[in-house]
Amino acid sequence: MFYAKVYITLKKSIADPQGNAIKEALLSMEYDGVKDVRMGKLIEIKLADKSSKEAEKRVKDMCDTLLANTVIEDYTYDILEVQP
Amino acid sequence: MFYAKVYITLKKSIADPQGNAIKEALLSMEYDGVKDVRMGKLIEIKLADKSSKEAEKRVKDMCDTLLANTVIEDYTYDILEVQP
Repeated sequence: MFYAKVYITLKKSIADPQGNAIKEALLSMEYDGVKDVRMGKLIEIKLADKSSKEAEKRVKDMCDTLLANTVIEDYTYDILEVQP
Repeated sequence: MFYAKVYITLKKSIADPQGNAIKEALLSMEYDGVKDVRMGKLIEIKLADKSSKEAEKRVKDMCDTLLANTVIEDYTYDILEVQP
């Protein structure tokens, strides 16, 4: 059994109003060292695959077809083996 | 300069309708090994702090006061040193 952590972030060229709102909130709370904030998504998936290679292929497929909008988003993932 | 990646996830006992919707969508697309999906947030913060200890303390503070709702969410973070 595998556990995939998928990290989805907006591409650098895409404006991130949610991240900016967080940045402004942090600055208004006197966290004055904050230079930039970007907001992304974390999707954790438990998979019943037998091999990590198979799991990786499926996770990549899932990202391309459903989880990420590859026009505006980048994704990376980690795959860990876990006990069922 | 430091770069913090904050991972915010719903606590295990909290229902995750968004994760369930993704799970159902994946199952309907014939990804039949999907056992569970949980949706979380990823917040990337660029910080002008001088030391990683200082950066870590501030990030923990930010999580507790603004970024995470610790009643229903857990958070973890990684802090990396980057060139300005």
